[in-house]
Amino acid sequence: MTADYKDYVNGVDKRIGALFKAVPKPMGAYSQLAQSASAGNAIDSKTKELMALSIAIATRCEDCIAFHARAAIGHGAGRDEVAETIAVAVEMGGGPAVVYGGKALQAFDDLSK
Amino acid sequence: MTADYKDYVNGVDKRIGALFKAVPKPMGAYSQLAQSASAGNAIDSKTKELMALSIAIATRCEDCIAFHARAAIGHGAGRDEVAETIAVAVEMGGGPAVVYGGKALQAFDDLSK
Amino acid sequence: MTADYKDYVNGVDKRIGALFKAVPKPMGAYSQLAQSASAGNAIDSKTKELMALSIAIATRCEDCIAFHARAAIGHGAGRDEVAETIAVAVEMGGGPAVVYGGKALQAFDDLSK
Amino acid sequence: MTADYKDYVNGVDKRIGALFKAVPKPMGAYSQLAQSASAGNAIDSKTKELMALSIAIATRCEDCIAFHARAAIGHGAGRDEVAETIAVAVEMGGGPAVVYGGKALQAFDDLSK
Amino acid sequence: MTADYKDYVNGVDKRIGALFKAVPKPMGAYSQLAQSASAGNAIDSKTKELMALSIAIATRCEDCIAFHARAAIGHGAGRDEVAETIAVAVEMGGGPAVVYGGKALQAFDDLSK
Amino acid sequence: MTADYKDYVNGVDKRIGALFKAVPKPMGAYSQLAQSASAGNAIDSKTKELMALSIAIATRCEDCIAFHARAAIGHGAGRDEVAETIAVAVEMGGGPAVVYGGKALQAFDDLSK
Repeated sequence: MTADYKDYVNGVDKRIGALFKAVPKPMGAYSQLAQSASAGNAIDSKTKELMALSIAIATRCEDCIAFHARAAIGHGAGRDEVAETIAVAVEMGGGPAVVYGGKALQAFDDLSK
Repeated sequence: MTADYKDYVNGVDKRIGALFKAVPKPMGAYSQLAQSASAGNAIDSKTKELMALSIAIATRCEDCIAFHARAAIGHGAGRDEVAETIAVAVEMGGGPAVVYGGKALQAFDDLSK
Repeated sequence: MTADYKDYVNGVDKRIGALFKAVPKPMGAYSQLAQSASAGNAIDSKTKELMALSIAIATRCEDCIAFHARAAIGHGAGRDEVAETIAVAVEMGGGPAVVYGGKALQAFDDLSK
Repeated sequence: MTADYKDYVNGVDKRIGALFKAVPKPMGAYSQLAQSASAGNAIDSKTKELMALSIAIATRCEDCIAFHARAAIGHGAGRDEVAETIAVAVEMGGGPAVVYGGKALQAFDDLSK
Repeated sequence: MTADYKDYVNGVDKRIGALFKAVPKPMGAYSQLAQSASAGNAIDSKTKELMALSIAIATRCEDCIAFHARAAIGHGAGRDEVAETIAVAVEMGGGPAVVYGGKALQAFDDLSK
Repeated sequence: MTADYKDYVNGVDKRIGALFKAVPKPMGAYSQLAQSASAGNAIDSKTKELMALSIAIATRCEDCIAFHARAAIGHGAGRDEVAETIAVAVEMGGGPAVVYGGKALQAFDDLSK
């Protein structure tokens, strides 16, 4: 469905940008939530992005998969870590997590090129 | 992913039409459920379509977003009302609601042209 | 399962309070998100709480149902508005929304006594 | 959590009854949807109730589990059929389906006594 | 969105194949889960694939719909059985199940050509 | 709702045990999936249990929360790590994750006594 997640994630960014302009206050608060939740502390940021990716897979959210795969890569996550994250999602999500996990692996491969 | 929600929603209509033909009785009953639930009464129809849109976003159903964005426009919903509906969905749905909220805003813009 | 939603919602409040103490920054940002998303603007606060209630039903979140039923009552929502909100959730959620809608109606009745 | 699903399902019935009184038109249409969808035709009613049970497990809806376990029993479903239905739900739902599958088996045992 | 589910399902297969290579142990165990859960026993395999399809629709997983529609066809499921399966999913899933049910019917039609 | 998660998790264990006896083959395969997915490798087991906990919160599965909170404690997870895991779930799940996050913190407190 997605030729390349590089193009795909641009569409996600564009739509989020438009949403920020439309409702700046709630989106600004959401942005602070996302920043403070993913900041490194007792758990480091790379792990938190992988955790967010695992939730994205288990909740079947393709845009979220693209978004957090890119963020995990940005924090230095490797392919083996992404693959094991997918395995935890499969344990917790069964068949739908298998197919969305396949999208996550493709997203990692496309976005880390 | 979706070049234009005008084309997109045509595909939704076509698939629903085929389903009605295949199982007319349950789909007819569903149709009556949808009509009676969205009819204006203690709450008006525009608000009910925005409510359905908020659920569509929170449950990550893109076809539903297109369908109920169009219905909300048909009942006179404005862009600011759609944007605030998305904000409630983000409060109740976090990150996935942000990205599906972005689709909802694009759907409103495409379908109200 | 729930003898009375008045006791029930106290448990919800207590657990949210403990969570605020444990991770004050993300929870503070979430609080701002919730406040700005539910503030009256193009859509009034009562309607926004009913919208949040419809999402709570459609996503099968009993604590959320108790929380937003109480908030809707606080903004003056009547039983007929809550009942029609449930009907929209049933349109969008089928059988699970019927049974969680039943909880929502009980929550309204218990919490508006 | 549930001492006995016999008491539990009575609570479900009572809440659904109250909801029917509050919004008779949409609930009447839902009732017709449920009846026509579960009527035996190309697929028999027992199988359709097991199918509904599998969805109830996969969507983590305990009230639905109690409701459709009782209906499946009413159509003559045996414990082995319920157990295999749970296994399909586990294939499609992973860990959450395991724990809600455990509730479904208990519901069958309680309600077929 | 999907021109033809024949091409679509090839993409699903390719991504699952890559995931198997990346995490062979958990995916091998998942494969055994899927095989043993869908093997004919007290319930036959065709019915189990329709059950899996009903869950795929109710959980809004398009890849799963394509996958299990193909498997149901492989076990001899007819269009009327698929349509009635969709009706059960609509009873349990409301509006989102209507639109994903429409995809399931299209998938059946495309994949049984 | 839950007086103490120590009693609660015993009920979960008992129901899973009954399910294993009823469908040993699929449940045995699921067990192998869970073991291989949560085994320490590129990501350590404690982190994987926290990841599973984050999914349990985001998917609103109370039994899963009790189960994986206990497992995380068994692998040495501290209260601060659990709290930050909840924060990531809130980022990805909004309001429902707040209230189920509250349950997760209570589960940690009850089960680590």
